[in-house]
Amino acid sequence: MQYPTHLLKLIDVLKKLPGVGTKSAERFAFEMVSWPASKLEEMAHIIHKTPNLLQHCLECGSLSDATSCHFCQSSHSRLPLLCIVAMPRDVFSIESTHEFKGLYHVLGGLLSPMQGIGPEALNLPKLKKRIAALNIGEVVIALDSTLEGDATALYLKQELEPLNLSISRLAFGLPMGSSLDYVDGGTLARALSARGKF
Amino acid sequence: MQYPTHLLKLIDVLKKLPGVGTKSAERFAFEMVSWPASKLEEMAHIIHKTPNLLQHCLECGSLSDATSCHFCQSSHSRLPLLCIVAMPRDVFSIESTHEFKGLYHVLGGLLSPMQGIGPEALNLPKLKKRIAALNIGEVVIALDSTLEGDATALYLKQELEPLNLSISRLAFGLPMGSSLDYVDGGTLARALSARGKF
Repeated sequence: MQYPTHLLKLIDVLKKLPGVGTKSAERFAFEMVSWPASKLEEMAHIIHKTPNLLQHCLECGSLSDATSCHFCQSSHSRLPLLCIVAMPRDVFSIESTHEFKGLYHVLGGLLSPMQGIGPEALNLPKLKKRIAALNIGEVVIALDSTLEGDATALYLKQELEPLNLSISRLAFGLPMGSSLDYVDGGTLARALSARGKF
Repeated sequence: MQYPTHLLKLIDVLKKLPGVGTKSAERFAFEMVSWPASKLEEMAHIIHKTPNLLQHCLECGSLSDATSCHFCQSSHSRLPLLCIVAMPRDVFSIESTHEFKGLYHVLGGLLSPMQGIGPEALNLPKLKKRIAALNIGEVVIALDSTLEGDATALYLKQELEPLNLSISRLAFGLPMGSSLDYVDGGTLARALSARGKF
């Protein structure tokens, strides 16, 4: 059994989306076949054009409609804190918590000796300059809790320690709404050793 | 907090895919921003062009690259069985089981008085003609096990009974690999009443 060629082509291209396997791509494709031409054209146009219109902020590396992002443009009204994240997406995740009112710095990745990603591949040269120029008092390291995230956090700590500022990292512990049954041993151990007065 | 306009546009259009919510659309969009222009252009081109190149087989209603599908073109080499399904996608699902070697008839939907879908909205006029022309000996009703599927199956039974052919419907019972704990009462009742000699 074989799908019609055109359907197969559509399924194959949809499988390039992250986390989309054959089953999901088939569901998308069969649905799209019933779409009016105008809807298909609109989606095609936006996919073709908008990603190229987005720019990386020359200052912090976050995604923006212009070469200077919303956060850097309003830097005077934000607190002198600098949150260091790996990817532009993380900026928006942290911003949506409404818990952080400082500025951001996007590294563009994490150190990974296995994949040959060293410090020179990350957006580090501007980091120290920005910390001085923006009069930053605290740096918040908001990186993944993985081998690469830990390595990068340690590297940043070593690099920034001489600057005489407060360096913090996101807390580790139980995710909200979690049941102890389903929490892994490593997380539980961290939650125990970092337990707080109740 | 607000995403850049172009990113928001991309997220919004990706949310039109079936089963894709804000979280998935965001994941797709952030990934697509890092794609090279050629990859974006290829996806846009295929989304814009291929769904319109697909045709419904004039004979059975299935999807095809031409106005006559792979199954109808080789009708002489297939068994005189006719499998009635609701949507083109079902043809490919059944075909992929390799359990059915007959022909297909796609209704294009299911009867649904609630949504105002009556028999006139379905691909029924050609059904009796095809059964006669193709010398069909058995009709297999392969419709959803839902209210609409049951109603459509009953309607088809009434319509086709005078034609003096064998009418069957897909079996109901436990899905393969299922655990009784997780099977709903209705399914279990059907599986019990239709139990077979072991």
